[in-house]
Amino acid sequence: MSKPLRIGMIGYGFMGRAHSNAYNRVANFFKLEHTPVLQAVCARDEEKAKAFAETWGYKSIETDWRKLIARDDIDAVDICTPNNLHKEIAIAAAQAGKMILCEKPLAMNVAEGEEMCAAVEKAGVANIVWYNYRRIPAVTFAKQLIDEGKLGRIFHYRANFLQDWTISADLPQGGQGLWRLDSAAAGSGVTGDLLAHCIDTALWLNGGISDVTAMTETFIKERKHTLTGKMEKVTIDDACSFLCHFQNGSLGLFESTRYARGHKALYTLEINGEFGSIKWDLHDLHRLQWFDYRDAGNLRGWSSIHVTDGDHPYMNKWWVPGLAIGYEHSFVHQVADFCESLSTGKPAGPTFRDSLETQKVCDAVLKSAAEHNWQKV
Amino acid sequence: MSKPLRIGMIGYGFMGRAHSNAYNRVANFFKLEHTPVLQAVCARDEEKAKAFAETWGYKSIETDWRKLIARDDIDAVDICTPNNLHKEIAIAAAQAGKMILCEKPLAMNVAEGEEMCAAVEKAGVANIVWYNYRRIPAVTFAKQLIDEGKLGRIFHYRANFLQDWTISADLPQGGQGLWRLDSAAAGSGVTGDLLAHCIDTALWLNGGISDVTAMTETFIKERKHTLTGKMEKVTIDDACSFLCHFQNGSLGLFESTRYARGHKALYTLEINGEFGSIKWDLHDLHRLQWFDYRDAGNLRGWSSIHVTDGDHPYMNKWWVPGLAIGYEHSFVHQVADFCESLSTGKPAGPTFRDSLETQKVCDAVLKSAAEHNWQKV
Amino acid sequence: MSKPLRIGMIGYGFMGRAHSNAYNRVANFFKLEHTPVLQAVCARDEEKAKAFAETWGYKSIETDWRKLIARDDIDAVDICTPNNLHKEIAIAAAQAGKMILCEKPLAMNVAEGEEMCAAVEKAGVANIVWYNYRRIPAVTFAKQLIDEGKLGRIFHYRANFLQDWTISADLPQGGQGLWRLDSAAAGSGVTGDLLAHCIDTALWLNGGISDVTAMTETFIKERKHTLTGKMEKVTIDDACSFLCHFQNGSLGLFESTRYARGHKALYTLEINGEFGSIKWDLHDLHRLQWFDYRDAGNLRGWSSIHVTDGDHPYMNKWWVPGLAIGYEHSFVHQVADFCESLSTGKPAGPTFRDSLETQKVCDAVLKSAAEHNWQKV
Amino acid sequence: MSKPLRIGMIGYGFMGRAHSNAYNRVANFFKLEHTPVLQAVCARDEEKAKAFAETWGYKSIETDWRKLIARDDIDAVDICTPNNLHKEIAIAAAQAGKMILCEKPLAMNVAEGEEMCAAVEKAGVANIVWYNYRRIPAVTFAKQLIDEGKLGRIFHYRANFLQDWTISADLPQGGQGLWRLDSAAAGSGVTGDLLAHCIDTALWLNGGISDVTAMTETFIKERKHTLTGKMEKVTIDDACSFLCHFQNGSLGLFESTRYARGHKALYTLEINGEFGSIKWDLHDLHRLQWFDYRDAGNLRGWSSIHVTDGDHPYMNKWWVPGLAIGYEHSFVHQVADFCESLSTGKPAGPTFRDSLETQKVCDAVLKSAAEHNWQKV
Repeated sequence: MSKPLRIGMIGYGFMGRAHSNAYNRVANFFKLEHTPVLQAVCARDEEKAKAFAETWGYKSIETDWRKLIARDDIDAVDICTPNNLHKEIAIAAAQAGKMILCEKPLAMNVAEGEEMCAAVEKAGVANIVWYNYRRIPAVTFAKQLIDEGKLGRIFHYRANFLQDWTISADLPQGGQGLWRLDSAAAGSGVTGDLLAHCIDTALWLNGGISDVTAMTETFIKERKHTLTGKMEKVTIDDACSFLCHFQNGSLGLFESTRYARGHKALYTLEINGEFGSIKWDLHDLHRLQWFDYRDAGNLRGWSSIHVTDGDHPYMNKWWVPGLAIGYEHSFVHQVADFCESLSTGKPAGPTFRDSLETQKVCDAVLKSAAEHNWQKV
Repeated sequence: MSKPLRIGMIGYGFMGRAHSNAYNRVANFFKLEHTPVLQAVCARDEEKAKAFAETWGYKSIETDWRKLIARDDIDAVDICTPNNLHKEIAIAAAQAGKMILCEKPLAMNVAEGEEMCAAVEKAGVANIVWYNYRRIPAVTFAKQLIDEGKLGRIFHYRANFLQDWTISADLPQGGQGLWRLDSAAAGSGVTGDLLAHCIDTALWLNGGISDVTAMTETFIKERKHTLTGKMEKVTIDDACSFLCHFQNGSLGLFESTRYARGHKALYTLEINGEFGSIKWDLHDLHRLQWFDYRDAGNLRGWSSIHVTDGDHPYMNKWWVPGLAIGYEHSFVHQVADFCESLSTGKPAGPTFRDSLETQKVCDAVLKSAAEHNWQKV
Repeated sequence: MSKPLRIGMIGYGFMGRAHSNAYNRVANFFKLEHTPVLQAVCARDEEKAKAFAETWGYKSIETDWRKLIARDDIDAVDICTPNNLHKEIAIAAAQAGKMILCEKPLAMNVAEGEEMCAAVEKAGVANIVWYNYRRIPAVTFAKQLIDEGKLGRIFHYRANFLQDWTISADLPQGGQGLWRLDSAAAGSGVTGDLLAHCIDTALWLNGGISDVTAMTETFIKERKHTLTGKMEKVTIDDACSFLCHFQNGSLGLFESTRYARGHKALYTLEINGEFGSIKWDLHDLHRLQWFDYRDAGNLRGWSSIHVTDGDHPYMNKWWVPGLAIGYEHSFVHQVADFCESLSTGKPAGPTFRDSLETQKVCDAVLKSAAEHNWQKV
Repeated sequence: MSKPLRIGMIGYGFMGRAHSNAYNRVANFFKLEHTPVLQAVCARDEEKAKAFAETWGYKSIETDWRKLIARDDIDAVDICTPNNLHKEIAIAAAQAGKMILCEKPLAMNVAEGEEMCAAVEKAGVANIVWYNYRRIPAVTFAKQLIDEGKLGRIFHYRANFLQDWTISADLPQGGQGLWRLDSAAAGSGVTGDLLAHCIDTALWLNGGISDVTAMTETFIKERKHTLTGKMEKVTIDDACSFLCHFQNGSLGLFESTRYARGHKALYTLEINGEFGSIKWDLHDLHRLQWFDYRDAGNLRGWSSIHVTDGDHPYMNKWWVPGLAIGYEHSFVHQVADFCESLSTGKPAGPTFRDSLETQKVCDAVLKSAAEHNWQKV
């Protein structure tokens, strides 16, 4: 007998669609005790809320997120707003006893994140952050291989997140579609938007980061602001890279930018261990590159594993070997695991607490870049 | 105001899931006048029908397809049965005035196909066959490029469909899960199952085929039959390849097999024209390889287009550039186009009539292989 | 103490350069008892012969090949002429007791080839044909893997040789630079030029071919002839493909063309066996793709082996792992193996007799294409 | 009429072979006024010098490099010794009026490099450093594209040099074969050995570097020393990475290591500009990846250019389109350009002076890593 998990979604942008799709689909493919129900969506603009509700099948709408949180018929709040609203909403939701599924990054900074962690932990509510790339099957599979010891001692971790969509100087900053370019709404530029993904995965796969030395750049210094109509100084980072030491003694190299012409959303990671290495990238997300030093010498090579078999993570839920799934499925998997965690009582990561660690690295990176020195995390 | 398109699905296997998913999702992503409604699913086994209905949200079940067809609350019949039932169901559905969405291949042979075409055309009902690969965005994009003349005169067309799942001699034949290995249910082996996909795409992209010379092989001669429990002769083709002439003067080379170790579902096609060439394969379905002879000489190369931009076919409905969709989306696109065709009155292909051409090539191929000579199509 | 192998080269075109380079380099990299010495080069045009001799370090020139063959200071004759001269020169050279290194294809047809085999065997002279691709390290390595049984029973063999350099209708036929377009000089088009390479490798890797069904095409029907200055009918095959059965029960698919836009010299081969599969292509000649079914299920993938290690064939003679060699080295390897064979007395293949088998397949292919039926080899 | 360029080579290891091969081959493929002649090779071990001379065709040997430099019949000295001998030999050779071809890195440090520059400039002798990767055709082609403005403003430069050959703790350090692991002979580890290559190319393609922040690591702390037979502290860097600013405002990211399991000699570089991007790597050295933003939007992709055409740098000297050359050819090109520079009087880079800039970056990188701060170059 299925138990409804009544979702109240705040926000209706790109992530609102991705999450709604995940809630809608999960029960078609996963056998779960808890089943998401699209109870309400909240947006300041009533017309937009209605249209979104109709498209996705939400039963009701709200235009004030406080009202949504106050409703008795909501079990879980999904926060899809710009970053500067995460803290306030999350704390209020926790206080109202709601479970929380919060978009990444967790917060504008570590201080906010700590308040949020305190709130959910005090309230004892289930909480998770939408670092969805952990649940691309190839990435989850990488985690399995590492946990099985297939790589041995780790020497190197490398991750990039390369985009090219803000190169034009004519692109404005701020407003509904472009709040990611406005530091008031986003907190930072690529650091919180892109690097945070890389860091979340890295901490999960390779453990904690000790210290960092970083460099940021803003290539276009002024852009017209959508809300004011005036040219204003751009205060986000267009590019950010850093070197680091992991606690396990391995070396890290991270880079993100929105000025890497030719790359749409190229999240790429590589791990080099004593016995094997792993590579993956988001543009061919269904493949894991695997090098096994323990193969016979003359047969060693990078193997391109098409991660679509029934014995690959999550893949026995979908189609048959060779038939790929896509980006959106990582959200379905996150919902499935979150629902599963409600049955088992074992939290599905990354929790707020897990994501606070990512936030700490982000803050250290930005501080290092500002102060031109190494920073402890 | 949305018009419901009430679906009656017959069958509940792999394709039943793929189609049901498509019906469920299309309205979340496409603005359409007609919206599929999962009215009823039909299976001989009542328990299985119920379970399937519950998972996918069908409103009702039937255990006799004739009853399903007789219902007034069904607008369209979706035929997902083994091939040997297509003809009887399709003709009955047409006579009942139902639209028909039929799994491929259209029929067991040309004679059956002709009866089916006659029936739907006499009844004047909308009809389509699920050759879904036409609607992988990269393949649809290839069609656009060809239609724009970007390739010029075509010299070569090459297509393979390579799998490796029946190599074990211990695999039985026949029964619910393995009817594709039983010629009584499937009509043929890889020819109707895999080559038919390649042929459908080829006819669409490159026009009619004039004549063929073919070769088939059955590598494992006997397998235990699931239904009888006895070793029986295998009468399907495990592998089939053919050479052909297209009506436009280009040469064709086709191959399919279930004995190509290392390939799960590798449908690959390549077209070489005077001014450019195209390659695509199903294992990296989101990419189109494109060679443009009109580029500057020293800059010419095969370009790997990540077909995930808003100006690529269907992709403005999904996510943002760089974020891939998967196999299942081709079915969503087919449903969207079918619904759209009900509004425009312009049939969405491939219709039964279109698919009869594919059947003619398949029959010629099998006859050529049997008689060891060239056959006109 | 090194024994000189005094070479008399006939012809000075592209292959003359490739062979001369091989003779010049082999002793720098291989420890051999026999060392090639560039004794004489023969060309009808004295100035060209002199220039070639100076560039490559030949000690002398001849303008009449019969004189070259008659010289006492020549141990081996290298035939780099157009195909229509192979037979006459080879037979004369054999009669003069010279070893022979003959460019491929062996002859214009099987009848010629049989005369040539008879001549060298009667004379008891060492003989070899320049099917150089056997000695690309990755291809030699493929042979090792097959011989070790790593692939098990073979199901499929696939090879293409795709080029695009004759698409322009303005390209003339015949004469010194374009004799390959003139059937009087070349015997056939792509069949002898390109497919012959594919067939030689296939026979070496996968054994004999039983029967074939083939198709040829001449896309441009008339071209100006370089020698006559007039438009003349083109009598070579621009494209040729065939299906076949190998004696070991596997199926073959071969294609070659000079009309595959985007491919410069793309010789590609793939072999599918019960336990593993192999792929290779000439555009990335230093890599072998290897699929091992006996790997753990979830780790199976196509492994890209960078064939540059000391335990790969020939590679311990060159640089260090990761540093690739190129096309020309296949000729160096052939010279090294030929020299080695003079020490061991064990012939290095392909001998004339081996290459006669390739000729038989070529003849059967051309006959099948002409008669539109299956031909026994 | 050819002018001999009489070479005196000092050292006979891996690089001695690569250079000797280049001297031997250049005149077969390039029309040059000056032709290298292998006049003498110098090694402390007379037997080894003789063996090397015989293999490569050197006319004479020396066992004392001072004698070699003193000889009247030597025009140019080629320094292939470990790094700690470069300075002394180069200065002596310059004082003797010899041209100098020096292996990279130029020197142990900037101070030495400055002395060497002063010496060759005072003597007015032609000088070059063997940063051979500039002359891989694909890399030279990248330089052409940048110089033509095809990339526009540069935002990012990224380069790695990844190897995996020193991971075993059992590998000793020092001695003839492993002097690269001994800082007394090598000066540094991967910084001078691998990163120096990346830096040379970067300065050439993207101009000067302003400042750096770096990190080094020695993963295996002690190794047996070949010469002493004792466990000794390892004082080289096993891995080194750094972030930097280029003078043109672009950002740089460099990494090298000998602990990247799965990579034999993977030198990879990428440049992102406003209008286009370029990628290249040494494992597929014959390909350049090129992204052109000015292509039509839906056709944009990374194009894999097979750099083997006659209109690609150096390639008209070799074979025909599609047929690749290898690693060793970069040395042939360097010799050809050096000889050409003797005719034109225009120095071929990188000169000692050019390479001093690379040394400055290396020194700044090592200092930054030691002091944990940013360093101006």
